[in-house]
Amino acid sequence: MNAPTAPAEVTRAERAARQAEVVRALLAVLPAHALLWHAEDTVPYECDGLTAYRQRPLVVALPETEAQVSAVLKACHALNAPVVARGAGTGLSGGAMPHAMGVTLSLAKFNKILSVDARSRTAVVQAGVRNLAISEAAAPHGLYYAPDPSSQIACTIGGNVAENSGGVHCLKYGLTVHNVLQVRGFTVEGEPVTFGGTALDTPGLDLLSLVIGSEGMLAVVTEVVVKLVPKPQLARCIMASFDDIQKAGDAVASVIAAGIIPAGLEMMDKPMTAAVEDFVKAGYDLNAAAILLCESDGTPEEVEEEIGRMSAVLRGCGATAIAVSRDEAERLRFWSGRKNAFPASGRISPDYMCMDSTIPRKRLADILIAIGEMEKKYGLRCANVFHAGDGNLHPLILFDANDPDQLRRCELFGADILETSVAMGGTVTGEHGVGVEKVNSMCVQFSAEENAQMFAVKRAFDTKELLNPGKVIPTLQRCAEYGKMLVRAGQISHPDLPRF
Amino acid sequence: MNAPTAPAEVTRAERAARQAEVVRALLAVLPAHALLWHAEDTVPYECDGLTAYRQRPLVVALPETEAQVSAVLKACHALNAPVVARGAGTGLSGGAMPHAMGVTLSLAKFNKILSVDARSRTAVVQAGVRNLAISEAAAPHGLYYAPDPSSQIACTIGGNVAENSGGVHCLKYGLTVHNVLQVRGFTVEGEPVTFGGTALDTPGLDLLSLVIGSEGMLAVVTEVVVKLVPKPQLARCIMASFDDIQKAGDAVASVIAAGIIPAGLEMMDKPMTAAVEDFVKAGYDLNAAAILLCESDGTPEEVEEEIGRMSAVLRGCGATAIAVSRDEAERLRFWSGRKNAFPASGRISPDYMCMDSTIPRKRLADILIAIGEMEKKYGLRCANVFHAGDGNLHPLILFDANDPDQLRRCELFGADILETSVAMGGTVTGEHGVGVEKVNSMCVQFSAEENAQMFAVKRAFDTKELLNPGKVIPTLQRCAEYGKMLVRAGQISHPDLPRF
Repeated sequence: MNAPTAPAEVTRAERAARQAEVVRALLAVLPAHALLWHAEDTVPYECDGLTAYRQRPLVVALPETEAQVSAVLKACHALNAPVVARGAGTGLSGGAMPHAMGVTLSLAKFNKILSVDARSRTAVVQAGVRNLAISEAAAPHGLYYAPDPSSQIACTIGGNVAENSGGVHCLKYGLTVHNVLQVRGFTVEGEPVTFGGTALDTPGLDLLSLVIGSEGMLAVVTEVVVKLVPKPQLARCIMASFDDIQKAGDAVASVIAAGIIPAGLEMMDKPMTAAVEDFVKAGYDLNAAAILLCESDGTPEEVEEEIGRMSAVLRGCGATAIAVSRDEAERLRFWSGRKNAFPASGRISPDYMCMDSTIPRKRLADILIAIGEMEKKYGLRCANVFHAGDGNLHPLILFDANDPDQLRRCELFGADILETSVAMGGTVTGEHGVGVEKVNSMCVQFSAEENAQMFAVKRAFDTKELLNPGKVIPTLQRCAEYGKMLVRAGQISHPDLPRF
Repeated sequence: MNAPTAPAEVTRAERAARQAEVVRALLAVLPAHALLWHAEDTVPYECDGLTAYRQRPLVVALPETEAQVSAVLKACHALNAPVVARGAGTGLSGGAMPHAMGVTLSLAKFNKILSVDARSRTAVVQAGVRNLAISEAAAPHGLYYAPDPSSQIACTIGGNVAENSGGVHCLKYGLTVHNVLQVRGFTVEGEPVTFGGTALDTPGLDLLSLVIGSEGMLAVVTEVVVKLVPKPQLARCIMASFDDIQKAGDAVASVIAAGIIPAGLEMMDKPMTAAVEDFVKAGYDLNAAAILLCESDGTPEEVEEEIGRMSAVLRGCGATAIAVSRDEAERLRFWSGRKNAFPASGRISPDYMCMDSTIPRKRLADILIAIGEMEKKYGLRCANVFHAGDGNLHPLILFDANDPDQLRRCELFGADILETSVAMGGTVTGEHGVGVEKVNSMCVQFSAEENAQMFAVKRAFDTKELLNPGKVIPTLQRCAEYGKMLVRAGQISHPDLPRF
């Protein structure tokens, strides 16, 4: 498979000469141990969590100080060398995949928590600090950092900023952009820059929101000021069964329409619960067409009141059974199934492809019906697990990658889900980012003018297009080529659709 | 006073010729009744809520359809004519002040509520719809639109989007950017454009957050999709007295640090409560050095629990008296004083200048002490009313504009408050925007590089710099001139400081 950022034809000799040039420049500003360029040293950096795309970088730089980050950027800018910033490499859309002729700039050494201030409920952390480490440092104050991507034990706050990461609790507590007050770092020219601030709002253009989720295309972030929130005193979880998947979808919209923002609101369909129950014994209702998990957190009084109201709404929407976790052990057991949905799918099918589109919450039932029809159309099964409260779908298409026809049908199935999501007013990615994986889908999501507008903003930060080039925003030419291959209304015209 | 956007010298004949040219072009795309250019017709548009700056526009266009908006923009772009979009003209920083050689594009005719969807809790409204009209349309569904600037009876949602408006309840419910899902409108070239969407997040760069608060510099918005939230069942308000202003400031930080997000958290000092009580008889404690108003809303159970916790924190911080509203009439009476703070100030002083800086919440006591010292330094009184929960200050400097020396000292006092706020980690404007009023202050807030970065982003949308030129982002030259006049550490070097 060709990496989307593969350069125009470059000979081995040309690459070696360029590598020597870049290494020489970087050795002038970094200690020798902070620079890797031999093949065996750079292989560990050849991909992130999207392992389908692999590419060794020219050089990996591991600066230890802000002055070194600045110097690396200045050197790369002078040499017109692309720069790809990297945190823990857990991203699922290839945002940290290296550039063949570029420098991978690892923030791994920026792993210090600089301060935790309980009074202002903020922490100042370096970009390479792990998401969970922030909550661990805040725990003695009864505080934690809210966004909790499933990779939170490993992923870094810098990566979270780049991807605007969410998690199971983002329905109530927001995405990264809602939990970060300020970022500091460097422009592509190596100049120090600060976005946002620790006071309410900031005047002028909101460049902080622009930088969060920009996937390393606008600046390199070295330090982040995050908000901390108090740990809820109590959390309880409802497991509700439905005999009809449409009723379950409608129940999700009804809970929100009733003015309740659950701490988590997740949905699994019957193929999913069957796979999961067989794996972890979470106690799920195997007769249900779909189950919902609805969590409430807060003071005991708040939780009791909210659990009562949610239960009433779910019953009114036709829930056939409702169980409420009686203690923390049972609550964790309810969640254990949801959290093991992906590995459980791996046990019932040789391969699966995980999608990440979103739809407006009220269209949940519609997309479920549409996916059911696609199962027949493409002759493949699909297990569904959703961040339902957000309208963020994770359909898992089950297939055997060793069967080329199944792979082809799976890819068409995936493209159909994405296009149908956009047609329903949704988006092609909810929380995994665009990276290299979804760059073709951006042609479906946005008009040529809208993509051009994003490019113009990108160039306002990075005139030479050196920061993470080839990712996120498709070129006009790329969209034109992709347009020829599009599936819509059953027109399957190209057998070699790129893998989403 | 010179308007900051005054053009280079243009003779009356040149202006008349240019006006004829622009009118001719716009009459080709608009009906005659939708175009104003005679002096008596354009005078009502010469300023917004910042009446200190006045400038008649060349032409006022009042399009009635999106096609007409597009055509006006295309015509202006072809003629290189500046365009200033205008809602209700209630802004306080001159964001809608006309350009002498430009077209004021009024969105007044875009006053339709297109839909209210209780199920998805959203409304689709045209840009000229009044803020309060949205809540009125949503009321039959038990919903409302949360941001509530004090001008909400008159201001439009388009203006709210331009200024990222807040209000008394934005501590809990967020600013405009947290309550808008999507905006539609036109680029400076007259091309249709959509930012954001109705599903969770959107891929690529977050241009929606960038456009919200961009003060008409990036695009012209014609339609907005807003979030609606359920009306709380109950609201109650605590009035707490303190014998020391520092203790009151610390109490604000302590309430938030205890994990409580009040629906409103406002502070007034003794000069303010005295002025207000004399005016509206709100029942304030006139012996207190400062009072806090802390509101809780939600279900009766939630409110009872939260009022109890807030009262305990306030007592722990040294509150000398605590009263809790017993019914809705008493709650509204508590708020009547706060809401009449500005007119009350008008009764005790010939003139007042209202500032709008912010500071990190934990610095509240520090800025109050600093303002107290500035009162002595500049020989003027200052009454303080704060959105304390947000750290958003509204110090009212009391002076007599007919005394030139008082005016001069007042302006220095104001500049000193802004600079001190920035030095404490705050910002020069909390909710009133930059417009023309604070454009010099942006030189204090941001480095030359940061302002240049904002300009680059602006040009990525508007290469010819035709949308609301001269506002918000200062030029390098402007900052250099302002730097010569700066007051800091008592250096008062220029007698004619621009009025903030």
